[in-house]
Amino acid sequence: MSGSEERVAVAVVAVVGVGLMGGSLGLALQARAGVREVRGADPDPEALREALARGAITEAAGSLEEAVSEADAVFLAAPVGRLTDLARRALAASGEGCLVSDVGSTKGGIVAALGPLERERFIGGHPVCGAERGGVAFAREDLFQDATYFLTPSPEARAALFERLHHLVSALGARPVAIDPGVHDRLMALVSHLPHAIAAALIHQAAETAPAGREALRSAGPSFTDLTRVAGANPPLWADIFLANRVALAEALRDQAGRLAEVERALERGDRDWLLRFIEGAAAGRERLRSARAEAVEAPWRLIVGVPNRPGVISEIAMALGHAHINIEDLALRPGVDGAAGELILLVSGEATALEAARLVGSRGYAAEVAPAG
Amino acid sequence: MSGSEERVAVAVVAVVGVGLMGGSLGLALQARAGVREVRGADPDPEALREALARGAITEAAGSLEEAVSEADAVFLAAPVGRLTDLARRALAASGEGCLVSDVGSTKGGIVAALGPLERERFIGGHPVCGAERGGVAFAREDLFQDATYFLTPSPEARAALFERLHHLVSALGARPVAIDPGVHDRLMALVSHLPHAIAAALIHQAAETAPAGREALRSAGPSFTDLTRVAGANPPLWADIFLANRVALAEALRDQAGRLAEVERALERGDRDWLLRFIEGAAAGRERLRSARAEAVEAPWRLIVGVPNRPGVISEIAMALGHAHINIEDLALRPGVDGAAGELILLVSGEATALEAARLVGSRGYAAEVAPAG
Repeated sequence: MSGSEERVAVAVVAVVGVGLMGGSLGLALQARAGVREVRGADPDPEALREALARGAITEAAGSLEEAVSEADAVFLAAPVGRLTDLARRALAASGEGCLVSDVGSTKGGIVAALGPLERERFIGGHPVCGAERGGVAFAREDLFQDATYFLTPSPEARAALFERLHHLVSALGARPVAIDPGVHDRLMALVSHLPHAIAAALIHQAAETAPAGREALRSAGPSFTDLTRVAGANPPLWADIFLANRVALAEALRDQAGRLAEVERALERGDRDWLLRFIEGAAAGRERLRSARAEAVEAPWRLIVGVPNRPGVISEIAMALGHAHINIEDLALRPGVDGAAGELILLVSGEATALEAARLVGSRGYAAEVAPAG
Repeated sequence: MSGSEERVAVAVVAVVGVGLMGGSLGLALQARAGVREVRGADPDPEALREALARGAITEAAGSLEEAVSEADAVFLAAPVGRLTDLARRALAASGEGCLVSDVGSTKGGIVAALGPLERERFIGGHPVCGAERGGVAFAREDLFQDATYFLTPSPEARAALFERLHHLVSALGARPVAIDPGVHDRLMALVSHLPHAIAAALIHQAAETAPAGREALRSAGPSFTDLTRVAGANPPLWADIFLANRVALAEALRDQAGRLAEVERALERGDRDWLLRFIEGAAAGRERLRSARAEAVEAPWRLIVGVPNRPGVISEIAMALGHAHINIEDLALRPGVDGAAGELILLVSGEATALEAARLVGSRGYAAEVAPAG
């Protein structure tokens, strides 16, 4: 894509926290994104040694400050409760042109805690992937392949740093999706945190109320097994995730409990029609979900958007497309001759998607045209 | 096992309802249980023709009455709401020595609806297995292989007929587990009907409340996919199953909603300790469940129980072991010389299980001894 020649190459990256996520980032950035140097920091010296031995990092730093001082980009891969503090320290200790991002699974808290100046260089991220077991020993360079990778740029985020993060994430093999931090957290409450809470509640219910003893659970069929597969994974991590997203998760739990009470009432009045509609509606909803996922890969199209040279434009456009779940496969900013305006060039999949994207940015007042990218 | 020589061979079986279950029973009974003739009845003539063409039945009967008239055993494989009526008709039209069973997924209703005389020959069953798609086209002779197959004998059930059903079910490759009908229904509410209801409720919640539009659900991770896999399967069938088990399912829904409200309250007061214990407890519960399932196969042991010649003894003993989830791999009744007493011989897996079984029947007043069955 044109414009990429002008990009600043990302040569040095700092990874703060070298567990499964940080270690996988280190491996993938070197193997897939041409990163020459990965400086790791971690309070656990044994984890640092192992990350170095596995090649996940190229250098073990003595502190976060040492790791980030010469970095072009910093990824914070620590427990979610510590991220805001680490982000502040990384921003303070890194250079003026350095991007700071994180991989926390909730985004509203950290973005709200940072100030407008800090949000110029901090752009949150959340790769939706993981593995059964944590620790750098299980790190893999293909962990991010085909995963959704949410990006939560603030209006203050610098366009060039958003572009840098978008490129790095694409290079990892992930699908970057720009999204508002609050929207992200409500979505995660619904599709991840609520399912985890339900799975745990169901195991407790089975253990405490199963007739004929716990052993009878051996007869549990596939539906019980499916619903409880994620129950009890990594308790300290998940307790923190639940707390970090407590408002949205509490709302989702209340909603779900209300729906179960509705089913209960339908049973009590013997309302077969209601039950039938309830299950049929679920069948239809699941089908829509499945078909949305099985979308065909189409030829690349280019969307060229005229943009003024002011902060927030890139993240506004990226989030408008992200919220409509239009995948931006690549993007580049081309400055105009007068410095006051320029062109944002986006690569999307297929003509229909390109036209829909043009309509979306057009409705926000930006002129856009589309063309095949062949 | 000794005693099997005295068994009445099951030569003719009637299958009422030739869908996935009935068709699979027909195939498996012929292939695995030495059944010579399978007479099928179904209100849908096209289903009957297809069952005949696939060899699932050997003869298409014009009516339920015609199908069962000369049968040694009848399996009712119709929708759960119609089973009581069909059981009555099958009992009335079959011979005095004929066993009548069903494959309905709830058992309390039908057992309670039948009278004591009817329960002498009716013994409910519930194979815990199925397939993605229904209909005789998807019938398979290995559908029951390794599946739990619940049997719900009443105290009135004739010992010889229970023995016959137990043998047929074992021959199919399934693991027969005797259980009280009410206990069965509460267990199924917990491990099957509740998970189905939750899956459907979760899909509705996602479809109606997902931020950034339904399309955002494409980003849903594996936990959401796991929890909603069974959502919306076969709406008329599941509406009937929910209704047939409405009391137990309503109770299970109320319990689950209460647990979700507890999580909500812990989030609202920011109680990390509670959340940690909640998730750790789920991890421990899931581990116990997993280890109970992975039990090793051991050498067969024999349990010889002295039993008086009166109704209900066999089902009492079988259910005592079933409730402790002791799998009876085979059983036979050996009449005593005086006709007033006899011996029940049970085959179980391993010495420890045999001793536990002897303790259980001993606590009910029956003398029992154990020996290796080698």
